[in-house]
Amino acid sequence: MFPLVRFSASSLRSISIADQETPRPAKVSDMDGTQLLGQLASALASGAVEVVDLSAPLGPDTPLIKLPPEIGKNTPPIEIHAISHYDKDGPFWAWNWLKLGEHSGTHFDAPVHWISGKDHPNNTTDTIPAKNFVGPACVIDCSGEAAKNHDFLLTVDGVKAWEKTHGDVPPNSWVLMRTDWYKRNNSEAKFLNVDDKGPHSPGPTAETIHYLIAKGVMGWGSETVGTDAGSAGGMDPPFPAHTFMHQANRYGLASLCNLDRLPPKGAILIAAPLKIVKGTGSPLRVLALVPRH
Amino acid sequence: MFPLVRFSASSLRSISIADQETPRPAKVSDMDGTQLLGQLASALASGAVEVVDLSAPLGPDTPLIKLPPEIGKNTPPIEIHAISHYDKDGPFWAWNWLKLGEHSGTHFDAPVHWISGKDHPNNTTDTIPAKNFVGPACVIDCSGEAAKNHDFLLTVDGVKAWEKTHGDVPPNSWVLMRTDWYKRNNSEAKFLNVDDKGPHSPGPTAETIHYLIAKGVMGWGSETVGTDAGSAGGMDPPFPAHTFMHQANRYGLASLCNLDRLPPKGAILIAAPLKIVKGTGSPLRVLALVPRH
Repeated sequence: MFPLVRFSASSLRSISIADQETPRPAKVSDMDGTQLLGQLASALASGAVEVVDLSAPLGPDTPLIKLPPEIGKNTPPIEIHAISHYDKDGPFWAWNWLKLGEHSGTHFDAPVHWISGKDHPNNTTDTIPAKNFVGPACVIDCSGEAAKNHDFLLTVDGVKAWEKTHGDVPPNSWVLMRTDWYKRNNSEAKFLNVDDKGPHSPGPTAETIHYLIAKGVMGWGSETVGTDAGSAGGMDPPFPAHTFMHQANRYGLASLCNLDRLPPKGAILIAAPLKIVKGTGSPLRVLALVPRH
Repeated sequence: MFPLVRFSASSLRSISIADQETPRPAKVSDMDGTQLLGQLASALASGAVEVVDLSAPLGPDTPLIKLPPEIGKNTPPIEIHAISHYDKDGPFWAWNWLKLGEHSGTHFDAPVHWISGKDHPNNTTDTIPAKNFVGPACVIDCSGEAAKNHDFLLTVDGVKAWEKTHGDVPPNSWVLMRTDWYKRNNSEAKFLNVDDKGPHSPGPTAETIHYLIAKGVMGWGSETVGTDAGSAGGMDPPFPAHTFMHQANRYGLASLCNLDRLPPKGAILIAAPLKIVKGTGSPLRVLALVPRH
């Protein structure tokens, strides 16, 4: 593609054609927000930018984490109860109420979810700045490794290999670990993948989370039931994605779907939790804006 | 602002400076999606595009609609229950579960919510195409009228007056009725504004909804407890925003906040309900992308 350049009429008059043979790349400071959003609206309408749904269905069959009783209490199964259904309880309308855990299905982890993040300012779903809900995504494809090894851990070297191809992980970006694990989301047994040694699912090493925090990322996202690997209860510290990411007042996304539909770089992630008062997290609809292939 | 133009090196060589004095406006077809999203990422980082939160806090104090018992059952009050709080029930973490109505707080109405929309394809929160969750917003300022008259109804003439200034309401855009009613959201009594004649809050006429559907809008949004006026139970048909918008397989947004922070035109609305299985609606975090003032 050709780069986008911008000239004022006066600047055009003062420079020669020869000067323009290597067009100056557009700077964002050149770009008016109104114009940019107008182009985004048109690109959404034309399909030049697609909206990809990264969320799993939310209902009684949604797989939920199962903590051993000696570790802690579990989140309750999701229930959906009708209030009315075009009947005597509401003649023209249907509606339901839900029993719903904050960390059920495709969900957002706020810093207050973990003891390491409990004293930060703006660490709950209702106080996190809205600007943190929309930003670029880096997608690291570990699907091959995870298919071969259900306990696969993404290492710092793995992230660096991605950066060698795609450039540095930028500050305030989401880093998403693609594993295609979401294809198991329709079966709790396959999704949790527990045997007598415990749960087996891919995730990051503690060092990887440290490395990403040093890069200034917005958060860490995975396709598994939580942001940590199945084996993370035995790591030092236990559950490092939770411990370190929330210690840094940063966020987590779990049970993401369709990461195989995102480019390694270039998508914009939209991940806005419900504004639950003092919420520790929230089920949410995660979307990505993606350039059409 | 100067318009944005795009040249390839070869096209620059073949035209004279004089030709460029009136730069050709950028067409969206000219704009590569990758490039556009890169510029959006930069504009979000620089603040040239701001993310505005249009959602109310979600918790036990969230105002809820109160139907007279002879009309139908009510949605239950929102409850938040701790599962653990860095204690014996979960030593390193805090989390909650909620009792939560689909149509509580800032929420999305899916077509299946109303009997007029119950037989449409893709009419539930889990089947609506994701592309319908992101699109342009038209904001019609009725705050002056609503302050003077709590039963104020936006008429077709009111919409046409807005169009005279801002251009036609475009297809697939959200139309949002700004009333500043959200400033009452911290008090259920003020928000519902009920007296012995019933609830008093602003909304659209039936003809207005018809007019907007003919324009091909994506949906209708308001700052009040539902998408219809307080007086809408007595209209013909009752609750026309629900009846007609969902009959057209289109959507509603209620209890929006901060519409006074949006421009009349130019914002991109992000309104993605939870992916509740067969959901009739959903509490959600509504965001807007807005050019910096």
